[in-house]
Amino acid sequence: MSRFSYVNGKYCEHIDSFVHIEDRGYQFADGVYEVFAVINEKIVDFDGHLNRLFRSLDEISLKSPIVKEAYLFHIRNLINKNKIKDGLIYLQISRGVAQRDFKFPKNVKPSIVITAKSSSMDYYYSKFNSGIKVKTTEDLRWKRVDIKTLNLLPPVLAKQKAVENGCEEAWMIDSDGYITEGSSSNAWILIEDKLITTPATTSILKGITRTSLINSLKKESIKLIEKRFNKKDIKTANEAFITSATQFVMPVVKVDDILIGNGKVGKYAHIFKDAYMEAIQLK
Amino acid sequence: MSRFSYVNGKYCEHIDSFVHIEDRGYQFADGVYEVFAVINEKIVDFDGHLNRLFRSLDEISLKSPIVKEAYLFHIRNLINKNKIKDGLIYLQISRGVAQRDFKFPKNVKPSIVITAKSSSMDYYYSKFNSGIKVKTTEDLRWKRVDIKTLNLLPPVLAKQKAVENGCEEAWMIDSDGYITEGSSSNAWILIEDKLITTPATTSILKGITRTSLINSLKKESIKLIEKRFNKKDIKTANEAFITSATQFVMPVVKVDDILIGNGKVGKYAHIFKDAYMEAIQLK
Repeated sequence: MSRFSYVNGKYCEHIDSFVHIEDRGYQFADGVYEVFAVINEKIVDFDGHLNRLFRSLDEISLKSPIVKEAYLFHIRNLINKNKIKDGLIYLQISRGVAQRDFKFPKNVKPSIVITAKSSSMDYYYSKFNSGIKVKTTEDLRWKRVDIKTLNLLPPVLAKQKAVENGCEEAWMIDSDGYITEGSSSNAWILIEDKLITTPATTSILKGITRTSLINSLKKESIKLIEKRFNKKDIKTANEAFITSATQFVMPVVKVDDILIGNGKVGKYAHIFKDAYMEAIQLK
Repeated sequence: MSRFSYVNGKYCEHIDSFVHIEDRGYQFADGVYEVFAVINEKIVDFDGHLNRLFRSLDEISLKSPIVKEAYLFHIRNLINKNKIKDGLIYLQISRGVAQRDFKFPKNVKPSIVITAKSSSMDYYYSKFNSGIKVKTTEDLRWKRVDIKTLNLLPPVLAKQKAVENGCEEAWMIDSDGYITEGSSSNAWILIEDKLITTPATTSILKGITRTSLINSLKKESIKLIEKRFNKKDIKTANEAFITSATQFVMPVVKVDDILIGNGKVGKYAHIFKDAYMEAIQLK
């Protein structure tokens, strides 16, 4: 079956989807992006992601080349054209094609690229059942990671370091010794019945899944504390998790050489995953 | 006249030069680059730039897809095909095309793109004669700006802020209040007969022009001091400069509301520019 992508107003065969070499996304990482999960043909947290996209655009002074409704239209078309039941939508907007110069170009139309791919929920559940391992690494990123930009080499290098150490995710540590977040996820620990996650300042990306999980937990008797935590705290944690648009709620069973709980997926992982899944199904 | 660029083994009409939307340079800024000046058909500081390119590749664990000599071959071809006397070569290497995933892909060939354009030395000299104005701005960049990567949104935003304030360059200030460097140049001040520039740590890109200027000044009786400087130091400076591959040695006559010297280009600007120009002509 052919795979289709959306590139600057056209639906193209994915293999034939190209952008100009002077697209500012390619030369300057001058753009922003979002990733949307699709479950049962439904786009998860669409409004949350789209609102964050518009915030990111605004923070880098980039005006959306299309209206909000058009994003939904194109994403729905790609879901249909690619016959996606469960999968992912990737969407990026860059400042467009212009002769290379650091300052913003004038009268240039931003570029939009959207891709879609199928992925299996079975894969998620099998990962969930074993939990993942995390490697801590220095947070080398810029000071505005609250904006979801294409400047992703620092988290790419962090993730790669994790993978080379037999782990699935990197947790990045700031100069004060605190975990900020994962390379492509938010980080959480549970100490007794208190769920702890880094506050959403400019030091982390305020995850849409993070917000949805927090909202979904309001019905439960969970004490949520938004505060920074360090490796000493991790040593006292009975459970740990990551959240992201593509990994939902994923238990962490080991951080560096620290076994979390008994190294098995704990009961709160199930409670949080179920609460989150229920919340997004209701949308 | 047609303009030609080099893209992954082929010389293409520039207007028809494309890369795939899943090139990691486009989605992750997962790549590095260099800019070479061309004066009188000669590539300025070729070895310096190429050695730095290979250092950058090494720092992000990316292997050059071609041997060193091939870069010179392709750049020379582009200079000839585009009939460039004075101008610029831009060269970038990314980790290649792969299904989007933060971790490094396996068995993927890195992408190489090279562009060339003419530019006039008259434009440089007219800028030199008036000097440029600089705006200071917070240094928001990541902690490894000694690697010349495509993660350029932070300096793009800095440069744009400068332009919107009627300036040609931004000088970025770290959390201790010291100038690190310009958004696309190194920063220098002269206090009495002492030339001061930020030491080449991981906080600045070690400019090839910076190194060439330092070497060219060894013959002169200039006291070079590599140390950090702040706005208080700038207030006592009699001259100031930026250096870069595209701006060579460029005098700075104003930083924010601080007039440098009497706001005119000083005598050392000429001495440094002449020393640099002589040094590169000899190559």
